[in-house]
Amino acid sequence: MASNIYFTRVYNSFVRQGLMKAIGAKLGMVERGTCEIILPYSDKITQQQGGFHGGAIGAIADIAAGYASLTVAPDDSEVTTVEYKINFIGAFYNGSLHARGKVLKEGKRILVTSADVFHVDDTGKETLCAVLQQTLVPVKKTY
Amino acid sequence: MASNIYFTRVYNSFVRQGLMKAIGAKLGMVERGTCEIILPYSDKITQQQGGFHGGAIGAIADIAAGYASLTVAPDDSEVTTVEYKINFIGAFYNGSLHARGKVLKEGKRILVTSADVFHVDDTGKETLCAVLQQTLVPVKKTY
Amino acid sequence: MASNIYFTRVYNSFVRQGLMKAIGAKLGMVERGTCEIILPYSDKITQQQGGFHGGAIGAIADIAAGYASLTVAPDDSEVTTVEYKINFIGAFYNGSLHARGKVLKEGKRILVTSADVFHVDDTGKETLCAVLQQTLVPVKKTY
Amino acid sequence: MASNIYFTRVYNSFVRQGLMKAIGAKLGMVERGTCEIILPYSDKITQQQGGFHGGAIGAIADIAAGYASLTVAPDDSEVTTVEYKINFIGAFYNGSLHARGKVLKEGKRILVTSADVFHVDDTGKETLCAVLQQTLVPVKKTY
Repeated sequence: MASNIYFTRVYNSFVRQGLMKAIGAKLGMVERGTCEIILPYSDKITQQQGGFHGGAIGAIADIAAGYASLTVAPDDSEVTTVEYKINFIGAFYNGSLHARGKVLKEGKRILVTSADVFHVDDTGKETLCAVLQQTLVPVKKTY
Repeated sequence: MASNIYFTRVYNSFVRQGLMKAIGAKLGMVERGTCEIILPYSDKITQQQGGFHGGAIGAIADIAAGYASLTVAPDDSEVTTVEYKINFIGAFYNGSLHARGKVLKEGKRILVTSADVFHVDDTGKETLCAVLQQTLVPVKKTY
Repeated sequence: MASNIYFTRVYNSFVRQGLMKAIGAKLGMVERGTCEIILPYSDKITQQQGGFHGGAIGAIADIAAGYASLTVAPDDSEVTTVEYKINFIGAFYNGSLHARGKVLKEGKRILVTSADVFHVDDTGKETLCAVLQQTLVPVKKTY
Repeated sequence: MASNIYFTRVYNSFVRQGLMKAIGAKLGMVERGTCEIILPYSDKITQQQGGFHGGAIGAIADIAAGYASLTVAPDDSEVTTVEYKINFIGAFYNGSLHARGKVLKEGKRILVTSADVFHVDDTGKETLCAVLQQTLVPVKKTY
């Protein structure tokens, strides 16, 4: 994974998230205005039928879109999610999910983002799994 | 926790969810049309500032509302989340979250639900943390 | 309709909305933190099957919830909708719709609201038609 | 506007919508899986500050995305909106809005769509105004 100032900024926040560790999520590509989160299939992310849990899909989509917006926030700021909405497109039982967030509106008071979550199978084939829309606000960094 | 046929039905599905185990969520009260999920604060559910993670809040709200709808679904059916939307009202760094789902529309093809997530502190005081709206469809039970 | 300071404040904004006039919507009860918009059935609000149009239902739910938040905003402010999400519960072909908004979070930077839209038939019977969740921000008043 | 079977199908439904007539909306380009609705600025679509009303923006985004899904529905079916969520990106006081819907998931039971709403000024310059995500179900055609 190529390191850059955006990746570093996001990474320093990402490693502080207990939830991401608990479910086994990893940070992928980060550029200005975009961020990718990768979630390999495991028994930590299943729902009752053994597929990826909607709650886990929502969590990585929320984080991918939120960190996309962090890359455009002022240096002394963080971002906090006001709300998000997610539609589930397909169910998957193996491989990994790649949530890719991007910034749609870079406002001083409000940031609007979206994320597409793709399933990637063992052959590298990508299939759309979920789509998210999200609103955030910048907040003072406290750590 | 009083056991009843609704609790039993939800419990049998809940224990199959690896994600709920990974984050330490527990099943609370279940009645016809309602379901409560409880998430104690721990290092498995934190975001970068040490508060409850939006992804974890979304996951338990999704599950509470979804299981509320399971209690009204036909016996040979399960339910699957089509989409949800969640607004975050407050940030919390201790205690536990109680997500309480209820059914708004009990359709044959579409179920509409909502959930309120409350923070409960050590004295039992409840404060609104998040609100969710959700759409589900009934599906054949496969296990 | 009992007049009060909240009703007056909302009314002065409501009458400036060309869209509300174009679809025949009326202002109902307004109290601190709540607002009702009434939309009688007419040929101005129909979809292709002759029922109330989802777009019209969305518009009055958006306005009812938004004006609920205006009643709690500082005197020199207005509010503007950041986003909303609406679920449609039932279809109706006559009578009127009553959208009732209320404030869930009264923040300085972010307001969160919800609205329930009820159908009211000729006998006064009420049936749930739609539910909305909404986010707003306060803005300077410019007129 | 080039006519085709998809345009004709959507047009025959569009002209039945009293709301679209009341606000002055027009049908634009329609292809398989996509649909455009155009809303010129007028006093029928204003909010209190004279800009395009969020309710009007929501209505054309809902319709553009819904009709995109109609182009892929079986011949004897229509579609009905289950829910939608819209984020407002910018405010505009002139010109016209172009809502462009597309299909993300073409399921037998559930259709998922999105729409981007662009403002177009007198010089033809386009600026993003709003983004929508929507869920629909196919229903029997009744007219």
